Amino acid sequence: MNSEATPVVGMVGAGQLARMTNGAATELGVRFRVLAASADESAAQVTADPFIGDYRSAPDLTAFAAACDVVTFDHEHVPGALISSLEAAGRVVHPGSAALRFTQDKHAMRAHLTGLGYRCPEFEPVASVADVAAFAGKSGWPVVLKAVTGGYDGRGVWICDEAASAAEVLSHGLDLIAEEHIGFTRELAIVVARSPSGQGAAYPVVETIQRDGICREVIAPAPGLRPAAAAQAQRLGLEVARDLGVVGLLAVELFETPDGLVVNELAMRPHNSGHWTMDGALTSQFEQHLRAVLNLPLGSPALTARYAVMVNILGGDDPELRSRLTHVMAADPAVKIHLYGKEVRSGRKVGHVTAVGRDLDRVRDRARRAASYLADGIEEYS
Amino acid sequence: MNSEATPVVGMVGAGQLARMTNGAATELGVRFRVLAASADESAAQVTADPFIGDYRSAPDLTAFAAACDVVTFDHEHVPGALISSLEAAGRVVHPGSAALRFTQDKHAMRAHLTGLGYRCPEFEPVASVADVAAFAGKSGWPVVLKAVTGGYDGRGVWICDEAASAAEVLSHGLDLIAEEHIGFTRELAIVVARSPSGQGAAYPVVETIQRDGICREVIAPAPGLRPAAAAQAQRLGLEVARDLGVVGLLAVELFETPDGLVVNELAMRPHNSGHWTMDGALTSQFEQHLRAVLNLPLGSPALTARYAVMVNILGGDDPELRSRLTHVMAADPAVKIHLYGKEVRSGRKVGHVTAVGRDLDRVRDRARRAASYLADGIEEYS
Repeated sequence: MNSEATPVVGMVGAGQLARMTNGAATELGVRFRVLAASADESAAQVTADPFIGDYRSAPDLTAFAAACDVVTFDHEHVPGALISSLEAAGRVVHPGSAALRFTQDKHAMRAHLTGLGYRCPEFEPVASVADVAAFAGKSGWPVVLKAVTGGYDGRGVWICDEAASAAEVLSHGLDLIAEEHIGFTRELAIVVARSPSGQGAAYPVVETIQRDGICREVIAPAPGLRPAAAAQAQRLGLEVARDLGVVGLLAVELFETPDGLVVNELAMRPHNSGHWTMDGALTSQFEQHLRAVLNLPLGSPALTARYAVMVNILGGDDPELRSRLTHVMAADPAVKIHLYGKEVRSGRKVGHVTAVGRDLDRVRDRARRAASYLADGIEEYS
Repeated sequence: MNSEATPVVGMVGAGQLARMTNGAATELGVRFRVLAASADESAAQVTADPFIGDYRSAPDLTAFAAACDVVTFDHEHVPGALISSLEAAGRVVHPGSAALRFTQDKHAMRAHLTGLGYRCPEFEPVASVADVAAFAGKSGWPVVLKAVTGGYDGRGVWICDEAASAAEVLSHGLDLIAEEHIGFTRELAIVVARSPSGQGAAYPVVETIQRDGICREVIAPAPGLRPAAAAQAQRLGLEVARDLGVVGLLAVELFETPDGLVVNELAMRPHNSGHWTMDGALTSQFEQHLRAVLNLPLGSPALTARYAVMVNILGGDDPELRSRLTHVMAADPAVKIHLYGKEVRSGRKVGHVTAVGRDLDRVRDRARRAASYLADGIEEYS
């Protein structure tokens, strides 16, 4: 390959998503660089020539983008105005600021999706206990309060059973919206990719299991989901991607309710609900994201096994995770282990495991045991 | 994970094998460094902090090894005396010099394996046309002449039909052995892993198709191989690894003959005949090599599809390989493409593709078409 023709993809952020994208970039023969806060960050450890800088700094972002053919993101925290400036300067940014806005402003996202006819929870901006109480008067308690900006992994979301707990949340002075608490039967997620030329591809719909607002387990495909419901969710993902002008990956978290699917959250990047694709799909979500932002034809999202189950490894009390690798690898030579090079802190995502196979109960059990033993040395799933 | 507990694996050499090992190291949470001749080399492009140096230089090797917990190799050209010196200095080197010797000295390999009872071609060191003629008197023409050291990818191997062509080879002044020309029905290869604690794991036996001494295509598993013959080849691989004290991967290239299997060549590293494992086995050969040299339990070598076919992309006349990616990806969204970041030169391995599936003819056709189109824009396999 002519080195002049080798594109450079730059990812702003150097967490585990950028880390895992690096491997896919390598195989596609793409140069991959990250903008990292420090050389110790998860992706900075394993990528060539990380750019050390601050994603909130216009000069840093500008300098980083100047060295890249395409700029993309591993998180949604880059200020929208800075992304717009890059675009105004002629940089190729995928997804672009017009799409990313809907991952950065939950009020705008709800208003826009509802306006387009997508079913979302009822919502309203709130600034006082009286506002919350009035909202609860229509939608009932509990009320979900969400920070309009900056939330992730359960942060920035509070489920309030009464006015007193809402008052506590309001006291922090954040911009908030109130949302109807959805009584869901389970949570699903759909990851799709969309390229600049409009090609779309949808992964199988997955079931996600959260605890304390953090994704713990993902089952692909969602067990027992009727084909019509799966097709509806895939169509929804592809339509949202098109309607919002997303280029790259879009993950849509959904509530499954007795009355149908309700849109919960959006992310426009590789997503925890797609980690299973590294070991269970023909094209990993990381490769798919790169294909999309480079306007290459999308890869097949087909499953390579009947079931794939991903379980996150959350930091436990014991930081010596690596000392437990031997046990887990010996106990199950077929489980796939992915570590992020992050220091163990309680509750922090430090890795994940994936198991694949035909018998769902067995596959779940294998993935849960491996992740839970790696996390804290206890081979049960609680 | 505690960063103090994170091992550093250093690979001497920065070709495509090191490049592909980097992705596996990332997922295992292992720090991976390469000793590269220049920052432009295939693996140096994509790894953190490559060490630029000369693998034939004792100071460079010593400095590189000092920064690593385990030293391993992507080629067999490091002088044995330098490897022994590292070991004498207390460095952990896998595979060690005692094993590597048999990949560096074909005469020693043939003598040792024959002495252990493994069936090899008849061989004899030769220094003159008279020696070759005497050897041909016993084994017949053609005679295979091999450089005792330094050969790879068909270099250092000459098939001589008569004394005149042997004379031409002898005129270069290399140390040579003469080998019996084996009339094989096909070529097979077996890749096994062995860890310091003696655990072994064997991948399925593959068929390899070479042209001009270069591997073109690998079919996993070898079609129509009787289970008893497959088991014999796997046992042979595991036994050779044990007998030679290999730690890491061992690839054994075999001739299938009407009278049974004959050992052709050995390699103690990830091998072209194992590239299919990235897309067709539960554990890639690159992950397996890392597990072995780190004395971690070996991963499952099981196939994840009925057939996997790998075809090398050899450089053609047109250096603009990347410009043909769009066509190939659009034509087959399920074919897996791996590019090595190497400048295209005629006949050079610049990447490979792998297809998996149930119908062997279809899988071969897909892999061949993709590789051949990427190589030279012609969608046929000649």
